[in-house]
Amino acid sequence: MSDVAIGVDVGGTKALALVVARDGRVLGEARAATPHDATREAGEATAAALTDLVHHLAATHQLNVAATPVGVGLPGLTRKDGRLAFAPNLQSASGADLGSLLGASLASSRVFCENDANCATVAEHEWGAGRGVDDFVMVTLGTGIGGGIIAEGKLLQGRSGFAGEIGHMVVEAHGIPCPCGGMGCWERYASGSGLKRLIREAAKEGQLPTLLAAHGSAEMIRPEDVTQAGAEGLEEAIDLLRQVSWWLALGLSNLVAVLDSGHFVIGGGLSSASDLVLPFTRDYLANLVEGYQSRPAITVAASMFGPRSGAMGAAMIAFERDS
Amino acid sequence: MSDVAIGVDVGGTKALALVVARDGRVLGEARAATPHDATREAGEATAAALTDLVHHLAATHQLNVAATPVGVGLPGLTRKDGRLAFAPNLQSASGADLGSLLGASLASSRVFCENDANCATVAEHEWGAGRGVDDFVMVTLGTGIGGGIIAEGKLLQGRSGFAGEIGHMVVEAHGIPCPCGGMGCWERYASGSGLKRLIREAAKEGQLPTLLAAHGSAEMIRPEDVTQAGAEGLEEAIDLLRQVSWWLALGLSNLVAVLDSGHFVIGGGLSSASDLVLPFTRDYLANLVEGYQSRPAITVAASMFGPRSGAMGAAMIAFERDS
Repeated sequence: MSDVAIGVDVGGTKALALVVARDGRVLGEARAATPHDATREAGEATAAALTDLVHHLAATHQLNVAATPVGVGLPGLTRKDGRLAFAPNLQSASGADLGSLLGASLASSRVFCENDANCATVAEHEWGAGRGVDDFVMVTLGTGIGGGIIAEGKLLQGRSGFAGEIGHMVVEAHGIPCPCGGMGCWERYASGSGLKRLIREAAKEGQLPTLLAAHGSAEMIRPEDVTQAGAEGLEEAIDLLRQVSWWLALGLSNLVAVLDSGHFVIGGGLSSASDLVLPFTRDYLANLVEGYQSRPAITVAASMFGPRSGAMGAAMIAFERDS
Repeated sequence: MSDVAIGVDVGGTKALALVVARDGRVLGEARAATPHDATREAGEATAAALTDLVHHLAATHQLNVAATPVGVGLPGLTRKDGRLAFAPNLQSASGADLGSLLGASLASSRVFCENDANCATVAEHEWGAGRGVDDFVMVTLGTGIGGGIIAEGKLLQGRSGFAGEIGHMVVEAHGIPCPCGGMGCWERYASGSGLKRLIREAAKEGQLPTLLAAHGSAEMIRPEDVTQAGAEGLEEAIDLLRQVSWWLALGLSNLVAVLDSGHFVIGGGLSSASDLVLPFTRDYLANLVEGYQSRPAITVAASMFGPRSGAMGAAMIAFERDS
């Protein structure tokens, strides 16, 4: 039984690898760009880049790769057997059996793949903002919305391992088109992309005089400009964050209806505005959840590990599944 | 260990009680009206009526009530300890600890309460259209929409026992008001109520000449008139069923996103039109589910036990929890 595991979080643009101890301490870290090489067989460029990254990290920390469990968080529908079935943000690896490719190139039988948001969920459950909570959902707010579900103390995987694709719940039938092919998906409204749309709409209606004066045009106002201006007390920015919080609460209330979750952990880029967004979200939940007064309190917390949670959870999954 | 159990399904207007054998055979049946007596303590009138019903059924079948496990399916948020926390359609019992009240009036320690749709789900899982399936959702289409979730082979209960309130997922933000207090809940669109609204709208737009000629006014056209006319091939009725099927598929695709369910069992009144509704629904699912082509086939089946599934499942739950 290894004392440490390597956890890798593979994003659409970069990959983060960590050496993690059983108690959650992070002992080492390395990064690499994610390749997008469509000329090679699906997943081969990805597997080669991840193999280099893991070897580099292992060498730095005197680890024997074959003796160290490796967990890999992948950005898409990840099957229980490690195949990346569908990955709009990593097309060159979509459909590839990354678990087998990595096992071969690392000469290791201890490689375990899982969806990236599920990894983050496991990290928060084991060591972070969901510790000791048996029924919660982790929601990662980035360009889209990812998610992971802890039900009765365990990661809910679903039939193929695809559970937790919460960003693609439709909350506005016939709504805004989504890259997934659907319309009105939650992630079009409550994510960074949703905030960008709110910025454009508010600018058009003359509601952002200060932000427009500072940045020139609506297209130049980034979500992080809004969260920073909101933190500094600018009312027009706070109004935008209030709106995105309403959409966030709407999706959370759907998850309460389906799952009876009592707790939510919010991660991802937009959660940097959590001092403003989470209180608004809690207030809106009281109006949106069916039978709110008949339920125990519903809590909403910020992710404890932020951008590291995916890689930490990948390591945790490697510990769990390595035996 | 008892060879038979009594299962009771308590609806807003009537209660059905069954004597059920361990293998699912129904050995006896009785019905009673559900009382709505707001002058007594919450739940007392309900408990008294159910006690009479159970005694009557037991006497008919020579059963010793105290020696027979009794399962009760309740129409609302039902806590794991048997309290009916929230029941818009059975206000006089809302908030009552029906498990204890019934235990006292039946002089039995073998009374087990559960949400009615969860009961139906357990029956379909054990003996019916979800037999042998580890990840499915049962959807009951009545005036509203109820639901129950089987995940990894077990009923998903959630924190308090309230999981499966799928009818209150919002699918149309700022949509039609719902008696639950929300707006745009799925059950406003894909249930019998949703069909009634579609009837009114289509009639106003002159799309129901034959049905209007037969029934006089839009208000006189009932959902069952539409399902019957559809079964007889009337195109204007089939169009309405196609629309309600789209809404049904929309909510099912949300459940696929969250839970990665591979199978759905459709019950309730509207499922009498299942020969038309289910094929339409399967077709729409192919367009609505994220990554549909990357998933194993998603199946949609009609409930096997129809209006008896709730009481049968209540008996099954009594078998399971009696020890």
